[in-house]
Amino acid sequence: MKFGLLIIGNEILDGKITDLNTRFLSEFLRTNHLELHVMMTVKDNEASIHQGLKTLADRCEVIVTSGGLGPTLDDITKQTIASYVGSKIMFSDAAMRVAEKNYSRFQRPFPGKEHGYCFLPEGFIPLDNSTGFAPGFFIHHENKCIFSAPGVPREFKVMTEEHLLRLVNPPEGSGLLESLNFRTRKVPEEKIFGEVDKDLWKKLSQFGDVSSLPILFGVDIGVKIRASNQKELDEKRTAVTKVMKDSPVWENVWHVGYESVEEMIVRTANAKKIKYGFSESCTGGLCSHRMTNISGASTSFMGSVVSYDNSVKENILGVSSQSLKDFGAVSVEVAKEMANGLRMNLGLDIVISVTGIAGPGGGSTEKPVGTVCIGYSTAKSTEAVRLQFYGDRELLKNRFSQAALFTLLEQLENFAGV
Amino acid sequence: MKFGLLIIGNEILDGKITDLNTRFLSEFLRTNHLELHVMMTVKDNEASIHQGLKTLADRCEVIVTSGGLGPTLDDITKQTIASYVGSKIMFSDAAMRVAEKNYSRFQRPFPGKEHGYCFLPEGFIPLDNSTGFAPGFFIHHENKCIFSAPGVPREFKVMTEEHLLRLVNPPEGSGLLESLNFRTRKVPEEKIFGEVDKDLWKKLSQFGDVSSLPILFGVDIGVKIRASNQKELDEKRTAVTKVMKDSPVWENVWHVGYESVEEMIVRTANAKKIKYGFSESCTGGLCSHRMTNISGASTSFMGSVVSYDNSVKENILGVSSQSLKDFGAVSVEVAKEMANGLRMNLGLDIVISVTGIAGPGGGSTEKPVGTVCIGYSTAKSTEAVRLQFYGDRELLKNRFSQAALFTLLEQLENFAGV
Repeated sequence: MKFGLLIIGNEILDGKITDLNTRFLSEFLRTNHLELHVMMTVKDNEASIHQGLKTLADRCEVIVTSGGLGPTLDDITKQTIASYVGSKIMFSDAAMRVAEKNYSRFQRPFPGKEHGYCFLPEGFIPLDNSTGFAPGFFIHHENKCIFSAPGVPREFKVMTEEHLLRLVNPPEGSGLLESLNFRTRKVPEEKIFGEVDKDLWKKLSQFGDVSSLPILFGVDIGVKIRASNQKELDEKRTAVTKVMKDSPVWENVWHVGYESVEEMIVRTANAKKIKYGFSESCTGGLCSHRMTNISGASTSFMGSVVSYDNSVKENILGVSSQSLKDFGAVSVEVAKEMANGLRMNLGLDIVISVTGIAGPGGGSTEKPVGTVCIGYSTAKSTEAVRLQFYGDRELLKNRFSQAALFTLLEQLENFAGV
Repeated sequence: MKFGLLIIGNEILDGKITDLNTRFLSEFLRTNHLELHVMMTVKDNEASIHQGLKTLADRCEVIVTSGGLGPTLDDITKQTIASYVGSKIMFSDAAMRVAEKNYSRFQRPFPGKEHGYCFLPEGFIPLDNSTGFAPGFFIHHENKCIFSAPGVPREFKVMTEEHLLRLVNPPEGSGLLESLNFRTRKVPEEKIFGEVDKDLWKKLSQFGDVSSLPILFGVDIGVKIRASNQKELDEKRTAVTKVMKDSPVWENVWHVGYESVEEMIVRTANAKKIKYGFSESCTGGLCSHRMTNISGASTSFMGSVVSYDNSVKENILGVSSQSLKDFGAVSVEVAKEMANGLRMNLGLDIVISVTGIAGPGGGSTEKPVGTVCIGYSTAKSTEAVRLQFYGDRELLKNRFSQAALFTLLEQLENFAGV
């Protein structure tokens, strides 16, 4: 069963927002042994939407549309799909009940039966929107399904989770699909397949489609395996895992699966009851932000100091003005003092520090943009290393924070109490 | 001149990464009076790429492709475009020179003339990649242009900026295009056009396509105006601005243009030489992260304390345990103490504090998930308000931080020294 996604909205093609629904839908399908086959983004005029529907209908059995269901005049998805399938818009009791429910959930007065949300093309099934106002809808047309949800990411997400699979009802026994994922670090993509293990790609390809995806300072090696039953799937998974474990690449694998370093930190720190925090300079709060995106982080993450200016390093973290003068703010010495200072100040088990140059300004010959010192402090030891990365400000902040989170994860894994 | 973007990569359709290149390209085109007409994402197999090229060639004059130019076996964009245009891949001196330059920039040894980067289809122009290894390329084919760049966002961005327009050479006098943008806040989309000014959409539509885009807690109202010369463009801009200024919606407009609240803060704070920082609880560093994404922030942003745990609120910010006990961590009283405490501790001009419940846990009947208290402290006054938002953890963190940044901007604009 092939799925296609049609995103309707000038705001994407005008560069005003980043599309998040493609990623959500493709992850959602993958975890359900299904695949997103193609995605297309078109302008919100009738001709473009028609062309998009036709292009996807030629390639897929299920068309999911995102966007254009709201209350303003540029929201024309419903009318356009109606004209595409040759149906007429009319007042619908079912649509009104859904819309009323959506309004009552937010304790907002329902605008009344003249409201556009109460009108739906004949044959369309209205869909409840539990996180917004605009109803979605579903229709069967010439052996294809069309499923339409609002473009607001949380509404699109919840509506898809609640309705999509029960409506399209994918056939049983169409096979199992699993995307194995091996997260490596510290080796560039070219080296993994060109030097460390030249035959790895070929060996893995016996079992399914292989992919390689560079992220921050590592590569995700993916193998998509298919099987007709659970036993065969298990055997293939075991075989792929053996190929990886027998390869010299294995020592760079830090995780098998899709868990992020943040999730692993929360799991490990909470299980070991370790209290931690960050002394962040150049990452400007990003390490803390990434950790607090994970629900459950508050059990172990106590807090951080963003010491962007040296005065904050001195006043709150107790970094000595002598060290700042002798070694500079970006130095292993200051990184160590930043980590140790906050750990002592707050009585934490582990503090990770980051001080570097994210650019574009502030670099020098001796310490170019991309230089970063990452430190850690525990009751047993306080250390720091200097690393060099490349990229623009945003990428560097991300890479610095990734290196800091890896350092934290290592410290958490090695932590054996005081 | 119509542009189409073809994104090639299973990693997008598998939900492993979020596509950022669409947003970059569409913004880039918009600022150059051009438009992205359609975007399509396909799998990295030959049949899907061919279909994608054909679909876009039917609709556009310029096809930009992203992805599939790297060194691994799933990188087949070059071969596939060669077969699409009926060209043969062969060794190319020009391609080798470009590849050598890319390697020498990173001080990495060049793999030699057998490397895939040295082979290019006949008639293709190799393109320098100043931030990565894989060269891009460009070709004219049957009155269409095809421009191919790597999918890594920074490489795609820099290569597009350096090469795209000089190669496709858009015709002069094809008209000017400007997207006017009015950023509103504190009124939901439905109310703006349904209650505050029912005729606004119609009035604006006289001048061009109108759009409405909800973001965080506001709406961006867009009007895309076209003109054959600069004078006409200026007149239309003035007319649209007058319609907006005459409308009751005007009092909710906080900015005309595309500047973000972060950029306005950096500009205002640096001009007025105001030193500020954040006391962040539930936003977990996001306010600071957003500010430090802006180059130049370090002139005025001094630092922050992420006081996720109450112990940090007491130890570093000097929040009284009595207030925490009497009013709870999420209260206007604690928000005021958080703001004032950090301001005194660091000797800053303005500190903004945020304490709330981002969920999914931690809510109560009296203080449900989405409750937030936002405070500010200056030498003249310390105040806080309680607000209520809706959404999941990530959305709430974003909305809380947006409210905090608006508070900061207001304080900066009102700031008249001590």
